[in-house]
Amino acid sequence: MDCIFCGIVNGSLPTELIYEGDQIVAFRDITPQAPTHVLIVPREHIESVAALGEAHTPLLGEMFLAAQEIAQQEGIGETGYRLVFNCGRAAGQSVDHLHLHLLGGRKLGWPPG
Amino acid sequence: MDCIFCGIVNGSLPTELIYEGDQIVAFRDITPQAPTHVLIVPREHIESVAALGEAHTPLLGEMFLAAQEIAQQEGIGETGYRLVFNCGRAAGQSVDHLHLHLLGGRKLGWPPG
Repeated sequence: MDCIFCGIVNGSLPTELIYEGDQIVAFRDITPQAPTHVLIVPREHIESVAALGEAHTPLLGEMFLAAQEIAQQEGIGETGYRLVFNCGRAAGQSVDHLHLHLLGGRKLGWPPG
Repeated sequence: MDCIFCGIVNGSLPTELIYEGDQIVAFRDITPQAPTHVLIVPREHIESVAALGEAHTPLLGEMFLAAQEIAQQEGIGETGYRLVFNCGRAAGQSVDHLHLHLLGGRKLGWPPG
């Protein structure tokens, strides 16, 4: 298994986790695009949004409740934040393990890329 | 009720819906930022991601399965797409009714705004 996010989840790639849930972990993006830039990642190796099925609904619920909680921790719960899933290369997905980007702490422009 | 997305949901603001589900509808953004730019919107008036609770987990599941299906309809299921929630003014949220942006059909840049 050479998936780097699986390595972070299983501890073989030591990384500071800022949130741990039953089905997910969260850590900071190594090339942050905003003062807060966190990745919320399922423990299960799921390739992308396109690979989600009905059985993953509880996982989605946990990811978004975690996003709310992390936004509060980071002090951006009130000012605002953007949540982004990239699916596929044309969208900029660079690691083939589902991850939700949480960005905030600055004014975010439009279009979103 | 002067929420424009509630108006679209209840039909008082006639809009071409490209997808209808039990809990959601989808329609094209009036200021598209990509060849495909669709908004996936719950029928229920929920202010933003920050207002989601555990009870909304099935809604989230339906939103993301709809996103997959709409991406296929639009011919961007394989090339890729970006899914974006803006939460709050600093993130660019302009209508206070939860909506998931689905963008694709061109290469999407980074950072995402």
